[in-house]
Amino acid sequence: MEYTKEDLLNCHQKIKSYIHRTPVLTSTALNEMAGAEIYFKCENFQRMGAFKMRGAAYAISNLTDEQKANGVVTHSSGNFAQAVALSAKMQGIKAHIVMPSNAPQVKKDAVRGYGGMITECEPTIEVRQAMTDKISAETGATKLHPSNQIDVILGQGTAAMELLEDHRDLDFIFTPVGGGGLVAGTALAAHFFGNNCKTIGGEPFEADDAYRSLLSGKIENNETANTVADGLRTILGHHNFPIIQKYVEKIIRVEENEIIQAMRLIWERMKIIIEPSCAVPFAALLREKEKFAGQKIGIILSGGNVDLGKLPF
Amino acid sequence: MEYTKEDLLNCHQKIKSYIHRTPVLTSTALNEMAGAEIYFKCENFQRMGAFKMRGAAYAISNLTDEQKANGVVTHSSGNFAQAVALSAKMQGIKAHIVMPSNAPQVKKDAVRGYGGMITECEPTIEVRQAMTDKISAETGATKLHPSNQIDVILGQGTAAMELLEDHRDLDFIFTPVGGGGLVAGTALAAHFFGNNCKTIGGEPFEADDAYRSLLSGKIENNETANTVADGLRTILGHHNFPIIQKYVEKIIRVEENEIIQAMRLIWERMKIIIEPSCAVPFAALLREKEKFAGQKIGIILSGGNVDLGKLPF
Repeated sequence: MEYTKEDLLNCHQKIKSYIHRTPVLTSTALNEMAGAEIYFKCENFQRMGAFKMRGAAYAISNLTDEQKANGVVTHSSGNFAQAVALSAKMQGIKAHIVMPSNAPQVKKDAVRGYGGMITECEPTIEVRQAMTDKISAETGATKLHPSNQIDVILGQGTAAMELLEDHRDLDFIFTPVGGGGLVAGTALAAHFFGNNCKTIGGEPFEADDAYRSLLSGKIENNETANTVADGLRTILGHHNFPIIQKYVEKIIRVEENEIIQAMRLIWERMKIIIEPSCAVPFAALLREKEKFAGQKIGIILSGGNVDLGKLPF
Repeated sequence: MEYTKEDLLNCHQKIKSYIHRTPVLTSTALNEMAGAEIYFKCENFQRMGAFKMRGAAYAISNLTDEQKANGVVTHSSGNFAQAVALSAKMQGIKAHIVMPSNAPQVKKDAVRGYGGMITECEPTIEVRQAMTDKISAETGATKLHPSNQIDVILGQGTAAMELLEDHRDLDFIFTPVGGGGLVAGTALAAHFFGNNCKTIGGEPFEADDAYRSLLSGKIENNETANTVADGLRTILGHHNFPIIQKYVEKIIRVEENEIIQAMRLIWERMKIIIEPSCAVPFAALLREKEKFAGQKIGIILSGGNVDLGKLPF
C-alpha cells in the first residue's frame, strides 16, 4: 500500500490537541564536536516522555465509536504502555495494558497514574501475546501494536513533519531503530516534506536486526540483544519494513560505549535528560561524522524516561 | 544608593548579545503537585550552564578600555569562574581565574576551554583572596565578585526581567539564595517590572545565613554549611543585603531531603538537568504550598552544572 502526504497531514491535524509541539534545541558545543549543524527535536519533552504518544493518540483517534466503547489492549513494559494509557484517558476510553510481572514498579505506577488497567503475566513474549489475545477476545478491546501498525507509523512520523516545518532545508534526519515505527514514519515525512532530505537510522551493534534485514531483504531476528538501549531490542514488522526498504537511506550501527558517551554528552552539554535508546542516532552521527561534515542534520530525541537509579555512567 | 528601572533596561540591552534568552517551561504534573501555576525560567540552558553568565557579561561590558586592556581576575571554583572566562573571551579580554587546587578537574577543564588562565592555590578562602589581590596588583586586572557587586546584581536580575516580559502577571518569583546576587537582582526586577510581584528566596537550613541576616538586621555567617546545594554555601554582601532587606518578601528554609526530592522531581517530570542549588526554590514552594495555592509563580532554575558521577540519588 502507498501512503501520501495527505495521510500525514490528516494524522497531524487529528492528534494535534493530544500532543505537545515539542521544541527544537541546538548546541554550539555539540555542533563543533560533530562538525555539522544539528537540530534536536525534543520528543523527550513529549507528553508521557516519548514520541510514542503520537502513534498511540492517532491509532485511538481512528477507532470507530463501537471500537471505542470496548477500549484497547496492548502489551508493553515500556513507553508504549504509558502512551496508550494516557491517550486512552484523553480520548475517554478504557485501556488494558499487559505488563510482565517483573516490570519496574515505577513503570507500573506510571501506567496506573494514567488510568491504565494493568494485567500482570509471566515475562515471556508468548505469554504476553496470549494474554493480550485473551483480553481482546473477552472484552472486544482493539489490539494496538507499538510499531507495526500503519496509523502508529504515521503518528510517529509527525515529529519529523514538525521538525521540517521549523527547519525546511535539513539534509538528513537521524532516528533510532527499534521496532521500526519511528524510522519508517520519519522516512515518509522526510520524503514528503523534506527538500531531498534523507533518513538515517541508528542501531546498536548488539541488536542490529534492521541493518541485517536491509542486507538480506527479509525481516531478521536478534539472537541476543545485550544493549543499554533497551527500547531498541525489538525487531521490524511487515508493515514498516517495506517503508524502511524504500525510504531509509542507510542504517549506522554503534557500539555500546558510543551510546553511553553520546548520552552523557547530551546530558552534560544540553542539560536535558534522554534515555539510552535516544542517544543512538547522535552516536551514529559522531561515528561517521566525516561523511556528514557541514550538513544540516535533524535528530529525533525519542524519549526521556530513564531510571535515575540505574544510570550507565 | 538607589537603582532604577532604567538601570536594568540598560543592562539587558548591553548584555543581550552575550547571553541566551532562555526558555520558560511548564509542567502539568508539577503544577498539580504544587497546587499552583509554575513558570520555570531555564537558566540551566544559559551559556556555560548558569545565570552567572549574565552578571559576568555585564560587569565586563562596563569596564573602561584601559581596564579591558588589563583583563579581569576572580576566584571561584564554581559557575562564576566559567562565566567570567567565557564572558571575557566573548568580549576579547584576558581572564585570570584563581581556583583551589582541589577543584574538580572537569571544572578546571571547562574554564580552560573558555580560555581562562588558571592560577591554582591552596583551598582556603584567605589564600584564594590573597592570590586574587596579588594578581590584580601585578597585572592591573580588575577584580570581579560573583555576587556582591552592583553590575553583577543587575545582570542577574535580567533573568527575572525576561520572565516577567513573557508572563506579566506573576504573583511571586522564587530564587535560591547563596551569595545574594541573584535574589537581589530578581527582587529589583520584580519590583520594577512586576505587577505587585513578590520575591521569595529559598535557602537550605544547613546554610541559612540570609534567613538569619534578615532577622538580625546584619550580615550573618554560616558556622558550617553541610548542604548538597553547593552553590549556596556563601554569605551575603554589603551591596546586595540592603536590596534584599528592602525588596525580598521572605526566605523559606528547606531540609536536605526536600532539596534532593525537588531536584529528582524536576529531572523526572521535566526531563531537564538542574544542579542541587537550583532545586531549592521549588523545594521551598512545595514546603509551604498551601500558602501559595492557586498563585502564578515564577521559579528561576539557576543552573545545570552537575557532576553526573556524583548524583545525590
